[in-house]
Amino acid sequence: MPSPILQPRHDAELADRFALSAATTRGAHLSTGDFGEWLAERGRANEFHVKRVPFADLDGWSFEEATGNLVHRSGRFFTVEGLHVTEMDGPYGDGPYADWHQPIIKQAEVGILGILVKEFDGVLHFLMQAKMEPGNRNLLQLSPTVQATRSNYTKAHRGAAVKYLEYFVGPERGRVVADVLQSEHGSWFFRKSNRNMIVEATGDVPLLDDFCWLTLGQINELLHRDNVINMDARTVLSCPPHTDSSANALMSDTQLLSWITEERSRHDVRIERVPLKHLPGWKTGESAIEHEAGRYFKVVGVDVVAGNREVTGWSQPLFEPVGLGVTAFLTHEFDGVPHALVSARVEAGFLDTIELGPTVQCVPGNYAHLDKRDQPPFLDTALQADRIRYEAVHSEEGGRFLNAESRYLVIEADEIDPPPGYAWLTLAQLASLVRHGHYVNVQARTLMACLNAIGLR
Amino acid sequence: MPSPILQPRHDAELADRFALSAATTRGAHLSTGDFGEWLAERGRANEFHVKRVPFADLDGWSFEEATGNLVHRSGRFFTVEGLHVTEMDGPYGDGPYADWHQPIIKQAEVGILGILVKEFDGVLHFLMQAKMEPGNRNLLQLSPTVQATRSNYTKAHRGAAVKYLEYFVGPERGRVVADVLQSEHGSWFFRKSNRNMIVEATGDVPLLDDFCWLTLGQINELLHRDNVINMDARTVLSCPPHTDSSANALMSDTQLLSWITEERSRHDVRIERVPLKHLPGWKTGESAIEHEAGRYFKVVGVDVVAGNREVTGWSQPLFEPVGLGVTAFLTHEFDGVPHALVSARVEAGFLDTIELGPTVQCVPGNYAHLDKRDQPPFLDTALQADRIRYEAVHSEEGGRFLNAESRYLVIEADEIDPPPGYAWLTLAQLASLVRHGHYVNVQARTLMACLNAIGLR
Repeated sequence: MPSPILQPRHDAELADRFALSAATTRGAHLSTGDFGEWLAERGRANEFHVKRVPFADLDGWSFEEATGNLVHRSGRFFTVEGLHVTEMDGPYGDGPYADWHQPIIKQAEVGILGILVKEFDGVLHFLMQAKMEPGNRNLLQLSPTVQATRSNYTKAHRGAAVKYLEYFVGPERGRVVADVLQSEHGSWFFRKSNRNMIVEATGDVPLLDDFCWLTLGQINELLHRDNVINMDARTVLSCPPHTDSSANALMSDTQLLSWITEERSRHDVRIERVPLKHLPGWKTGESAIEHEAGRYFKVVGVDVVAGNREVTGWSQPLFEPVGLGVTAFLTHEFDGVPHALVSARVEAGFLDTIELGPTVQCVPGNYAHLDKRDQPPFLDTALQADRIRYEAVHSEEGGRFLNAESRYLVIEADEIDPPPGYAWLTLAQLASLVRHGHYVNVQARTLMACLNAIGLR
Repeated sequence: MPSPILQPRHDAELADRFALSAATTRGAHLSTGDFGEWLAERGRANEFHVKRVPFADLDGWSFEEATGNLVHRSGRFFTVEGLHVTEMDGPYGDGPYADWHQPIIKQAEVGILGILVKEFDGVLHFLMQAKMEPGNRNLLQLSPTVQATRSNYTKAHRGAAVKYLEYFVGPERGRVVADVLQSEHGSWFFRKSNRNMIVEATGDVPLLDDFCWLTLGQINELLHRDNVINMDARTVLSCPPHTDSSANALMSDTQLLSWITEERSRHDVRIERVPLKHLPGWKTGESAIEHEAGRYFKVVGVDVVAGNREVTGWSQPLFEPVGLGVTAFLTHEFDGVPHALVSARVEAGFLDTIELGPTVQCVPGNYAHLDKRDQPPFLDTALQADRIRYEAVHSEEGGRFLNAESRYLVIEADEIDPPPGYAWLTLAQLASLVRHGHYVNVQARTLMACLNAIGLR
């Protein structure tokens, strides 16, 4: 065996190549001006109907006898189960104990969310897919090149092969730029992770129907439009290599990691999986499982008829939040270096106690019944802000959530002394954390893509 | 509020200060030559007796009626429960399914393992404690400054306050050098993490009985002796800031993180907590719960009488492995840069599917009944090695495990093309991973301390 050759641990050029793509708003294949028509055309080319149905009409899905869990007859895809959550101490050790039950989606298998990139005219382009998802209000949005659960690509759907999968797995795959297991919505999923990948193709790549090549600059423009870039694409867009604008920060990296360790240690959250049947505080009707006070979300069923999916039609449950969310980063420049105010969030479905989330992440309606002082911190600040640097409505995962939309905001804020559970991080620090799994939650990762989209570094 | 001042994200000097301490073998307080007598004297000063007792004689502990779980009447400390483990695919997708039951220790609370450091004569010294632990064959070993479960320091023991705790928690604590949640033995603990901390004291520190100040160079000398530096100290000693000797490696950091993500994704391990009662494959006697074939470990009980602990006496269960372990890193210099061969290990108690472990980590006796080809990979290589760079016997956590000893080895090996599940990492790459939790298992962290002890970088 010839002696292997060492390589640099860090590829400094790579971040520059992504920065060039972000600076390029003229794509080699499709102009941003023509994009809307292209997407509309893809919508016309693919028949797709979604209708709500009672649980009894969900093909292949039923409530399991003993547990009342909502399951698929194949034993695959996902299940809707119950969760009993107890937070042993108040968030700062002095509040009341929190204790609640809720339905949760359990989907153990790890899927792939992968974007293939390739240079055209010396500029990296991203291969994006026009993908229908039943939960999206506008159905069709831009997704990663590959967005596949293991059931998808091991053919539990008995459908067509996942397009471009070979660029992400197996011996023929391209050059990996990013590859990390990231959590998804911890309030709705039980310990779900997906593999977020960016892979650079080294050879020719055929362009299939429903796919288009866009520069990062074009994608950043589209990220300013409502409901165009889907959640799966946004989380992958938080991963490209980052050019650090400053080696300084309010907290050193050691202090930052220590703060995260402290936050993980001081929360004592007990999670118990329980049957969905007779879940305290929730009532099951023919068409919905809903909270007794009408808060949080409903579990509902839909029937889907589609043309361009791996299968031609299916039924499935979806989680439907009861209102529009607000998801915001407060930002502030300290000594010329932009920082974002993150919160250490407990979400019941996280693998570890906490992950870092946005400054504000909530559906305000869920708190309308509470006193002002019990409202989520900084919600008022976000709603009344006038220095809005970024604003768009985005949908969460349309394959599991119905009309789950949130107004994403990046706000220029005054200097704030962070209360317990909050900290100012530079964007370079966020980028270094997101190379690892389970540090930054999916909503904050969307906001990282938005921060990149407005060129804040 | 005055505008905060930014600071460098990385403190380059800090690693140099630890390197200086490692290069200093003459301590300001206690010479390494006098250490043995000091430790023996501490042993004489503190009465300590451990005797095995039947479960019925364990004060405060009993088998819970419904589950047969072994629990303490206070509901604190830890419990011994059952675990049902199913690995859905063979390790490389082509082996048989693995499926087994085993007892496991459940200890949800996060403890602190903390070493206080302070400069004397311009050199960092580590404050180490002579600590009795019932499971250690020689009872007394060197532990971190603070080694405390939450039960310890919230006084569930109703004992004395934890000494030096104020340097690690609260507003008066010192300057944090390292602070990370690390897993412990995944085969014996269910998702146990401890906070590994190194904190630098900024003011005077009183020296209490049973404590001594040692340079890192002195500790590294003592690490060459059998059973002197306990597990809790060794894991913290894997954390000091590291001076990278090379910016090159066989794999880039992106490839390394991708390999870990791939290993995490391809293993599908289902973990189910089950009652300890009637655990398949295990039999319960008056004094031990043991495997039907006499393999792996026994659960036993001991009665402890001590003088210098937070409490004056107690009973507790311990896990007792059936034989001496072998824990080894194969190392090789590629282009002059030392690499260690790590394995991606599935252990049932890990929070995430796999963590990186040593090349070899096993009790050979557990495999004696198997064909040669079913023996753990590289075990023969380790046992027959002649280029041994490091060798010592160390104990695992003596507060939970009885006579749990392993021969720790660092071996100079030939160039090996890593089989699936194995990879060559530089020691700088291991050091960068260990800044984060759940990447490197506790046995590999001990070996990192040993690699530091022989000056391999």
